[in-house]
Parts: sequence; structure tokens; C-alpha cells
Amino acid sequence: MTGEWSPKVVHPDGRWLEDLRVGMSFESEEHELTRDSIVRFAEQFDPQPFHLSDAGAAGSFFDALVASGWHTAAVTMRLLVDCDLRIATGIVGAGGEVSWPSAALPGDRLHITGSITDILVSRSRPDRAFFHVSYKTLNHEGEIRQESSARLLVWRRPFA
Amino acid sequence: MTGEWSPKVVHPDGRWLEDLRVGMSFESEEHELTRDSIVRFAEQFDPQPFHLSDAGAAGSFFDALVASGWHTAAVTMRLLVDCDLRIATGIVGAGGEVSWPSAALPGDRLHITGSITDILVSRSRPDRAFFHVSYKTLNHEGEIRQESSARLLVWRRPFA
Repeated sequence: MTGEWSPKVVHPDGRWLEDLRVGMSFESEEHELTRDSIVRFAEQFDPQPFHLSDAGAAGSFFDALVASGWHTAAVTMRLLVDCDLRIATGIVGAGGEVSWPSAALPGDRLHITGSITDILVSRSRPDRAFFHVSYKTLNHEGEIRQESSARLLVWRRPFA
Repeated sequence: MTGEWSPKVVHPDGRWLEDLRVGMSFESEEHELTRDSIVRFAEQFDPQPFHLSDAGAAGSFFDALVASGWHTAAVTMRLLVDCDLRIATGIVGAGGEVSWPSAALPGDRLHITGSITDILVSRSRPDRAFFHVSYKTLNHEGEIRQESSARLLVWRRPFA
């Protein structure tokens, strides 16, 4: 069965529902988290002393300048968009979970690695499915900076 | 009982563990999501056509330019940091859940409203506790753009 409708294609050579399997894995290249980018993100979205300067971070829970967890989450999304998962219609998420076992630091070179954990075809809208992914964001020393799971949308391959 | 250690204070008049109760509510002011900010965030963290331009968004699942869910999450963090919850040691999160019942649009004026749902004192480290919060990010017409829950750290009031 192929779909009657699908959104505009983002990756012409990307994957459709028929191409996905539980257990399929994906990974990304590395992205370096600079001190400047940490402070810029924090100024806009999380202006707390431990994300803004070394002086502000001294004596805090972290006791060092650390990235906002939401910055780590945003960088993780960029790594997911650019990784080898390559869904034809792009990464469209309905939600998910994040946890931060440790805070990301200036100089961390982050990458993600993960896999598909479930695929749920809609009964009411058989042209689409949710697939669940579970992935970790690690730095260059293998320290886990974020664990994530997400519910993403995928469509059936449209009629040729 | 008061705590032996606590991190540096962010809000001298803010709340400590002893001040928190399940059911305590909080809310924020409004923050307007501009088209420029949506595109700037997407260029950096979620460069998919439906977050970058009207032309790219046409025919997509959303069929209009929408904010990245992670942008909505980042703005929501800013609203949480600035709201009337005011934890003495700041907002320090271990993780949480987000879902996006609808995508935020240019011109949305977003605010959050939420409450404390649980308070869990650490048995091994009695100077601190996790408290759970549940909150919604709504636009100026009351449409829910994000539902969130988060696990946040709080400390006992230090010795005077």
C-alpha cells in the first residue's frame, strides 16, 4: 500500500515509512559547543549566572560555566536534522523526553547516536505513522550530556 | 531542619524547599514570537524548510512557516526563568517531557502557566529535593503550543 497524500519532500533520496525498521540505528557528525555560543544562547533563553560567565558560575551547583540544557537540546536537534536518519519529509516531532545526566561544557564536541524503538501506524490515518527514536548526545570523551526519546511523524511512500 | 550547603543564591528574596507546596502555581508575562526570531533559531538549530521561509513551508505538513518545537521549548525556558516561581538558587533542571499539540506561529504572544505537582526530598542528600512542575505554553488566544513537565532541584534554606 502506498500513500495518497504526503507532505512536500525535504530529502528526495530520504526514507519513507516502508523503509523504517525497529532497531535501525543512526548517528551524526560532531558539533563543537563554543563558550560564545553557550553565552549567546543563555542571554536569549536562559539568562542564569551559571550559563553566562565564569564569575557567575563560581559557587553555583555546577561551579563552572555550563550550557543550558535547552541549548544542548537545540544542538541535539541540529545533529538529528543533519544525521544519517534522513526522513524524506524531514524531522517532524510531536514531543519527547530529555534528561541531562551531566551539563555540557565549553569545548565539548557533541554527536548523537540512537535507534528506532517503535513504529506505530495510525489506524485512522493510514497514510502516516509515528516512529519512536531513542538517542544519546555524547561529547568527544563519551560523556553523556543528554538522553532523549522522541515521537516523530513519517508518511507512506507516495504513488509514483 | 536547615541545610548545611547550598549553591550561590540567584534571587536573594527567592524560595527555598521550605517555601514550596504541591499545588503552588506560577505564571509568566507574555513574550512575542517574531518571524525573524523563528527563522534565526531555525537557521542555527533546525534548518528545515517549514521553519525557514513561507515558500519552503508551502505544501509541508504545517503548510505555513512555524517555529521549531525546540524554539518554543527555549522560549518556554525563558518564561520559566522570568516567571513568579523565583527559586532562590535558580532553575536547575534534571530533565523533563515536552509535547507540542500545535506549532507556534509568527506573532504568537506566548506565556506559561503551571503548578508544582510533587516534591521529593533526597534521602541520601537531605540538603536538597527534586520538585516536579507541570506547565503549559499558551498563545494570546489560549491555544496550547507546548505542554511540559520538568524535574527541578531545590535546596533547604541555609543556616542564617
